[in-house]
Amino acid sequence: MTTIITLLTDFGHRDPYVGCMKGVIFGINRRAVLVDISHDVTPHQVCEAALVLRGAYRYFPCGTIHVAVVDPGVGSGRRGIVARGGGHTFVGPDNGIFGLVYPQLEDLKIYHLTNREFFRAEVSPTFHGRDVFAPAAAHLSTGVLPEAMGPEVIDPVGLSFPAPEMGAERIRGEVVYTDTFGNLITNIERSHLVRFGNFEQLTVKAGNTILARLCRHYQEVQCGEPLALVGSGDCLEISVREGNARDLLAVKEGDEVLVTRGKKGERS
Amino acid sequence: MTTIITLLTDFGHRDPYVGCMKGVIFGINRRAVLVDISHDVTPHQVCEAALVLRGAYRYFPCGTIHVAVVDPGVGSGRRGIVARGGGHTFVGPDNGIFGLVYPQLEDLKIYHLTNREFFRAEVSPTFHGRDVFAPAAAHLSTGVLPEAMGPEVIDPVGLSFPAPEMGAERIRGEVVYTDTFGNLITNIERSHLVRFGNFEQLTVKAGNTILARLCRHYQEVQCGEPLALVGSGDCLEISVREGNARDLLAVKEGDEVLVTRGKKGERS
Amino acid sequence: MTTIITLLTDFGHRDPYVGCMKGVIFGINRRAVLVDISHDVTPHQVCEAALVLRGAYRYFPCGTIHVAVVDPGVGSGRRGIVARGGGHTFVGPDNGIFGLVYPQLEDLKIYHLTNREFFRAEVSPTFHGRDVFAPAAAHLSTGVLPEAMGPEVIDPVGLSFPAPEMGAERIRGEVVYTDTFGNLITNIERSHLVRFGNFEQLTVKAGNTILARLCRHYQEVQCGEPLALVGSGDCLEISVREGNARDLLAVKEGDEVLVTRGKKGERS
Repeated sequence: MTTIITLLTDFGHRDPYVGCMKGVIFGINRRAVLVDISHDVTPHQVCEAALVLRGAYRYFPCGTIHVAVVDPGVGSGRRGIVARGGGHTFVGPDNGIFGLVYPQLEDLKIYHLTNREFFRAEVSPTFHGRDVFAPAAAHLSTGVLPEAMGPEVIDPVGLSFPAPEMGAERIRGEVVYTDTFGNLITNIERSHLVRFGNFEQLTVKAGNTILARLCRHYQEVQCGEPLALVGSGDCLEISVREGNARDLLAVKEGDEVLVTRGKKGERS
Repeated sequence: MTTIITLLTDFGHRDPYVGCMKGVIFGINRRAVLVDISHDVTPHQVCEAALVLRGAYRYFPCGTIHVAVVDPGVGSGRRGIVARGGGHTFVGPDNGIFGLVYPQLEDLKIYHLTNREFFRAEVSPTFHGRDVFAPAAAHLSTGVLPEAMGPEVIDPVGLSFPAPEMGAERIRGEVVYTDTFGNLITNIERSHLVRFGNFEQLTVKAGNTILARLCRHYQEVQCGEPLALVGSGDCLEISVREGNARDLLAVKEGDEVLVTRGKKGERS
Repeated sequence: MTTIITLLTDFGHRDPYVGCMKGVIFGINRRAVLVDISHDVTPHQVCEAALVLRGAYRYFPCGTIHVAVVDPGVGSGRRGIVARGGGHTFVGPDNGIFGLVYPQLEDLKIYHLTNREFFRAEVSPTFHGRDVFAPAAAHLSTGVLPEAMGPEVIDPVGLSFPAPEMGAERIRGEVVYTDTFGNLITNIERSHLVRFGNFEQLTVKAGNTILARLCRHYQEVQCGEPLALVGSGDCLEISVREGNARDLLAVKEGDEVLVTRGKKGERS
């Protein structure tokens, strides 16, 4: 059966780099099915890539191989790795890019990519995406086992990712990602909210905007008005119906988001 | 045989959303062939999506399934639909996005997507692209019939799209789309022009620019000069040879375009 | 076996044009495997497209067909061509877009696309990508021979591309491409440098910045500092570690880059 290989990079769409990786993969496995997750990660932003990957990988069928290359340390001593768990396989640099998926993967095993048999014959010190990760993924897609690629890694690099503060009176989180629509996606997950209180009675504050309840969908407010809801990725989001919350609320990544209990009318 | 599924959204290329849809489709039909039409529709602009879809769908072979998700009403009462006609199948919200293709489809039948058997088990109220339309399309690609998906729809939502005014002395149309090159594409179709007069003797006016005839290709004018022609989508377009008509003519979507009869020298 | 067809255009990602080409290809060969090299070439910039194509094509397996359409002369007398050599096939306008790959192709043969049997039935004078090049490539992918498409071309149009000046005391080149990361890619190739001197002792000057040696990878300098290296495409590049050389050095395409011999400390 053909294997799906997804690609996630900060290479953009104009340059030949993504095409090079795809060419290398097809040179090894002509039957691979390639899917672009994103190539528009902000250059060098490992955390952003980790969020995009976490948002997409689990919708792919078991057996999918995910190649993620946002790799400011390319060519230095940082390891290349293959990680397998929960039915998915991940290939890329050991720089935290998989730090948000590791906790979700059952029976996780990680291996250091050292076996040059699975690299291109010449490895450029500035383009491991083409010369190490693409060929390794292609070989994995033909049935090569991760353990054939190198020794096990027991100390993978994690991701420095802010956890929300769960207080008695409030949750203090922050905006961690802003999407194409300007939706402000926070690090406060559904599970945090469920532990904290009744969805109907939560108040959300971001910047100078106070939202007195959680909505279920956009049509609960008028066009151009802000709302808070648990988004499709199961995190608290602040949106504007048919508008752009980042611009309207003047809130950006890193800004604080507070959740408190309270009914409409009780908010300050 | 494998089935082609095209995707058209306003999701952009940076976020995980398009990847999620593709993962869901492959989870149901690993042999689907996915083709991106566009993910760069201006957010929430249903009419723009309808124009892009009209411009592309008919070049695909019979049997293709087109998923189009520009869906400001997601999660509200608006229906999800599958439409089949003219050898093509369309899946998306019933918000007018298919309003420009309906008139072109023979034996058109439309069905309301109500059978949850063809949705993802959990349906997010903010992401029907992933949870309703992608899985429905994937099931259709495996041979499920549209009529299995829900009851027939006899009152699909149309698109509010400006028709040109056909007068005795002139056609009054407008710019409806500006492409990447800055070409100004109007709602005046070849058929309107054929009815109106001799192509050689038509004068086109947009903004302050008067073009005394229709050209057939760009090389009939000098580099940097404007021209009018019937474009590859069979609509009247105003272009600048190796330049950008939107910028040079300072004309934008919604602006009036007039076609009159007259020979060079007779124009005011 | 399925054949890979790559696509390289200046059509962007928003409009229906790329989708049209893909639809036409699938209409002729449902088993083609389509890969986008880039659709973000600056409009009408044939040289830029030639550089992107040179950077990507050779990573694809033998038998791949590369369609490249940056075609300001569409509809005029410029020829459409198919070129085959070195195991690769190229389809597009005869305007120099293949000028950088021709010298790399063994047993190169070029043919004029004149046989309308392999075009769409109606050919728009403004969209040969859809009506000529896509169908020709699709027919080639089914096994049609290039020589069936038209007469041989013995005078293909070359590309006006600046060669570096190799002096006794210096190499004088220029920046020919700036990538998504802001890396400044020059026309000075590894082979030029090898002929000129010891890599360890070369000094590179671009704008007001002098770099006293060639690095092998980014980590040899601090974050935010510039460096020179031979990049993954085997050309001299000037980069900034985790930064943007175009912005930091205020150097752009066309600007001079000088390489001289000299040891650290000897630079002026």
